[in-house]
Amino acid sequence: MTYCVGLLLHKGLVMVGDTRTNAGVDNIATFRKLQIFEVPGERVIAIATAGNLAVTQAVVNHMLEGLPGTDGEIQTLYTVPSMFEMAQFAGRAVRTVRERDAEALAQDGNGFDCALLVAGQIGERRLRLFMVYRAGNFLESTEDTPFLQIGEHKYGKPIIDRSVTFHTPLEEALKIALISMDSTIRSNLAVGMPLDAMVLPRDALACTVNVRITESDPYFGHVRDSWSNALREAHLSIPNPPYGY
Amino acid sequence: MTYCVGLLLHKGLVMVGDTRTNAGVDNIATFRKLQIFEVPGERVIAIATAGNLAVTQAVVNHMLEGLPGTDGEIQTLYTVPSMFEMAQFAGRAVRTVRERDAEALAQDGNGFDCALLVAGQIGERRLRLFMVYRAGNFLESTEDTPFLQIGEHKYGKPIIDRSVTFHTPLEEALKIALISMDSTIRSNLAVGMPLDAMVLPRDALACTVNVRITESDPYFGHVRDSWSNALREAHLSIPNPPYGY
Repeated sequence: MTYCVGLLLHKGLVMVGDTRTNAGVDNIATFRKLQIFEVPGERVIAIATAGNLAVTQAVVNHMLEGLPGTDGEIQTLYTVPSMFEMAQFAGRAVRTVRERDAEALAQDGNGFDCALLVAGQIGERRLRLFMVYRAGNFLESTEDTPFLQIGEHKYGKPIIDRSVTFHTPLEEALKIALISMDSTIRSNLAVGMPLDAMVLPRDALACTVNVRITESDPYFGHVRDSWSNALREAHLSIPNPPYGY
Repeated sequence: MTYCVGLLLHKGLVMVGDTRTNAGVDNIATFRKLQIFEVPGERVIAIATAGNLAVTQAVVNHMLEGLPGTDGEIQTLYTVPSMFEMAQFAGRAVRTVRERDAEALAQDGNGFDCALLVAGQIGERRLRLFMVYRAGNFLESTEDTPFLQIGEHKYGKPIIDRSVTFHTPLEEALKIALISMDSTIRSNLAVGMPLDAMVLPRDALACTVNVRITESDPYFGHVRDSWSNALREAHLSIPNPPYGY
């Protein structure tokens, strides 16, 4: 399992991903789900992946090693000229792996399973955030719905639903994304530490945060404890129900 | 969809269920999911249901109209002598419907889908809470895990995970269950008002709360607003992340 969230806000992009993979509950490992490809001043591309690890690794490899573009020229994520084309390019990478592996996976009783968040900015073009489905199609985050999630999205969604708007400051959004991640980790063993987090201000073309957050990270520990205490105080501050005979 | 939660605590039982059913998003209706069968002083049985409404209605009907027990005698939920036998009885009702309907449902492309919470107390026997699966098997809530959920359980689980222990007072547990329900309603359109809620103190053999909570209920409105505000204050009270260059 996996949980990754991307928030495309007025001031920029925030992304957080966990690192736990599992094949059953008895085969657990750590793999980076959120990968940042940064050419400072030219482009910053963030790719978060969920689903079958063999599939998602192959998809990212195709994006790095290159695939033919619509004109037959080989493109990589360092040469694709716009984020809209990047989303299509990621979709083609998904379809390339699908054509190669889906039938064999099905014969083995497994579905072809992957989802990607593809976000970033290229030159003076717009900062954008897309979610690419396993069919290779995609949708885009907008001002009305400024975040997208992949993987185990439900446990961590209520806090984002209630707390984030398009105008939430980046630092606050990162904090909320970490709270959302903590809620998910507590409820689903298949999502786990360490975390990877990034912040990319709009038009900066360089990350201001690109960090691995481990179990011993003091700030994340503080978030966990503070949030638990604050939730407890929050529900204690609400009076008990008046129902009853 | 549905969300129902049952909490079996030191002092008694709390159950809350929503009432929304949907066949697709364009066919939405209101049906009671949490049903209370009370013979004051003798037994109180609470049944919450999730899944295919035709299946769950048939299951509850079989429990009311009667099914042969292990000795061939017809039993109903008013005659089953213990809660352990009640869970088995509910399982037999599920299997009866399954034998009748599962093949036809499968031919129509639908799985046989249902889950029940079966809880209550009979005479001087223990107050108990069971979850009955669609296969008719079941598990029981224990002191370590004093709550069980059916239906859309993920959105509302973090608040219960963090706030409820076996020793949480009943009124507080009802409040937390309502917060859990509110979180779910906000994130999933297929879970909706009104709600049904009950509280059954241990050894009381009569509910102290058995209430329908509508959209206009002032307490539930207060819970919604207070919780939103409290969450906002809670995350604002945590400092912003120290990461960054």
